[in-house]
Amino acid sequence: MHYPVMNKAGDVITAAVTNLDLHDISRAVRTYGVKKFYVITPLSDQRSLVGRIVSHWVQGMGATYNPDRREALERIQVENSIEEVIEKVRTACGERPKTVATSAKKDRRSIGFHDFRKKLESGAPCIITFGTAWGLSEEFISSADYVLEPIKGSTDYNHLSVRSAASIILDRLLGRD
Amino acid sequence: MHYPVMNKAGDVITAAVTNLDLHDISRAVRTYGVKKFYVITPLSDQRSLVGRIVSHWVQGMGATYNPDRREALERIQVENSIEEVIEKVRTACGERPKTVATSAKKDRRSIGFHDFRKKLESGAPCIITFGTAWGLSEEFISSADYVLEPIKGSTDYNHLSVRSAASIILDRLLGRD
Repeated sequence: MHYPVMNKAGDVITAAVTNLDLHDISRAVRTYGVKKFYVITPLSDQRSLVGRIVSHWVQGMGATYNPDRREALERIQVENSIEEVIEKVRTACGERPKTVATSAKKDRRSIGFHDFRKKLESGAPCIITFGTAWGLSEEFISSADYVLEPIKGSTDYNHLSVRSAASIILDRLLGRD
Repeated sequence: MHYPVMNKAGDVITAAVTNLDLHDISRAVRTYGVKKFYVITPLSDQRSLVGRIVSHWVQGMGATYNPDRREALERIQVENSIEEVIEKVRTACGERPKTVATSAKKDRRSIGFHDFRKKLESGAPCIITFGTAWGLSEEFISSADYVLEPIKGSTDYNHLSVRSAASIILDRLLGRD
């Protein structure tokens, strides 16, 4: 999600799309068998930019040069807002998906990885959301159905990139030892 | 490591440094309490480029603008070769570090994450190596003391970015639930 996210000062902003987020997160999504990777931004020029990048790898020169990359990037779908994503998943699955916020900060509602992994095994549709810039807005986090606990390393430093955080979270929820 | 790594055809090459590898992997290194992040390339212009990027975030404008980023990037040290890194770690720790190769392919010597995590707990110095481009050269992998098993997602797709792979591996070896 590139909106609603926070800047360094905590204001709600729209962040710019980063090319490597598309590649790294779609490759992780493909690795862990996630069905779709929705890239959300309300800015139409940013949506066309993402569309151009994806089409290079899915239909253009990139698809022939690197078919593994095609398999990853074809899971990307660009959308205007989280509400539209919820609606599309609801239509496709026949039930409203649960929304899950991720954050580097502990929330009083935080659910652990182990417990959430069990919930996912029920097969009910679920949208795991990741914020770019300084993370998802507090208002969005409070409105989500679940808040996933922060990733604990072995220190109190909690500034992973969104690419690292998404990879680690998919591994904790869907990976195999 | 940017050398010796493979290109798409399996030839041994020197890969170019990617800026976001420095940021993402140093942030993961800081999160999981790893002491140093050695960026290895035999190309002197690439070593100066990394030096310039790191110094922007460690001593320059970036250090004031984003002290969290400073804390991560100051763990980076640029070196010419893995042999020099082994020698520096040996001098600093008083014993020769073990080298651990990572790969997306299963090796007959592969050691599991759980078993290797236990080895790390002994506190003996250890260099976990990650290849850029299409991965570490086969010759380097055979010469390493250990080969870590590949990351299993929930599919047979094994094309994670080096940024994702490094993050997930540090989490599996050093993360806390």
